[in-house]
Amino acid sequence: MPLNPNAEIEITAFQWVPEFAQGVVRDLRARWALEEAGLDYRVRLLGQPRPEEYLKEQPFDQVPILSDGQVKIFESGAIVQYIGEKSETLLPRDPQGKYRAIQWTYAALNSVEPAILNLLLIDIFYKGEEWATLRRPGAADFAKLKLKRLSAWLGDKPWLEGERFTIGDLVMVTVLRFLRHTELVSEFPNLAAYQKRGEARPAFQQALSDQLAVYAANQPQPEPEGAAA
Amino acid sequence: MPLNPNAEIEITAFQWVPEFAQGVVRDLRARWALEEAGLDYRVRLLGQPRPEEYLKEQPFDQVPILSDGQVKIFESGAIVQYIGEKSETLLPRDPQGKYRAIQWTYAALNSVEPAILNLLLIDIFYKGEEWATLRRPGAADFAKLKLKRLSAWLGDKPWLEGERFTIGDLVMVTVLRFLRHTELVSEFPNLAAYQKRGEARPAFQQALSDQLAVYAANQPQPEPEGAAA
Repeated sequence: MPLNPNAEIEITAFQWVPEFAQGVVRDLRARWALEEAGLDYRVRLLGQPRPEEYLKEQPFDQVPILSDGQVKIFESGAIVQYIGEKSETLLPRDPQGKYRAIQWTYAALNSVEPAILNLLLIDIFYKGEEWATLRRPGAADFAKLKLKRLSAWLGDKPWLEGERFTIGDLVMVTVLRFLRHTELVSEFPNLAAYQKRGEARPAFQQALSDQLAVYAANQPQPEPEGAAA
Repeated sequence: MPLNPNAEIEITAFQWVPEFAQGVVRDLRARWALEEAGLDYRVRLLGQPRPEEYLKEQPFDQVPILSDGQVKIFESGAIVQYIGEKSETLLPRDPQGKYRAIQWTYAALNSVEPAILNLLLIDIFYKGEEWATLRRPGAADFAKLKLKRLSAWLGDKPWLEGERFTIGDLVMVTVLRFLRHTELVSEFPNLAAYQKRGEARPAFQQALSDQLAVYAANQPQPEPEGAAA
């Protein structure tokens, strides 16, 4: 049971986020990796608005930050890699295996996520704005091209580099989840199966349920009746 | 003199790219890191159109790929980190120093580059399209917010983590270069000085000059007179 208030490892997470973000906020990656590695961790929750001092720890005002003794780092990709270095389950030890996994972590975050997140922003944050309506078809085509390339690479392998699940798969599956408001991933049956295979892992299920439990416990109360009057 | 046709390490690069891309194509990151590390390398040039088989090596049709004996990897972030593991010059050996550098490599590629590249695409690839004109102010504001956060973090330090240049700085400087068609970086004097400090390094100068020499040598010939008739 990795969640442990006395654990050495600490991550930061948001106390609550709107529904469209629940289940995709990036502390999920750290939680999932820690579950896979069987490493205990505790969570430092951040309320809204975030205290200004948080920028001194995380200049882009994001979660998670991971602290582990002398080590304190941000960026979910770096954090997942750090956890991988602690646990061979997630990151092979031979140089080729290790760097192929790291390569896919970067590919997920730099070659795939920007196209996918761009579509999510158009569909959710900027929905109804004229530029977003005009740009949507091109942005969807670009995201689809990334999925097509990824699908062609994956072929009938269970994971990106074959039989073994690594940090690269962990991050890639969380990137594909950003498209859950669309049917795009299901246009590529091997990718849809790949995403499901990742999400079916007990470590993922535990991580997701622990992230969602925080939001449920901190659901903002509706304004009392008459408060707006 | 790291460029060496008999070197063990090989990277891929484009034979030629249009002028707006010259000096920012991502093999520059690998070349720069190899120069800093003093590691010999050779270059495998790719013509246009790229052979379909290249996708089997690099599913996103990008450069560079690095090969070094048993190791063959893509994604410039992973490549720079691999070179860093070979050379303490670029990547400290203590866990905190190492992971702070890796964290900045991810931050450059995932928290900063997408906003900056989005602006570049709007200004160059999509210039004149209606959505691009409408979106430009918002996209510029978002890129500026990233620069503001980065500038606040940097303060008066020479490099992102203090006195020591790392792979994180190497990648971040190449990301800032994507804004060279604008005046945005110069709105933040400490960032402009940071970028110049990176670009002034002899290893950067050598890498840039070697990248540009390839394009100069492979400049497409103008159509012979009358060919269009």
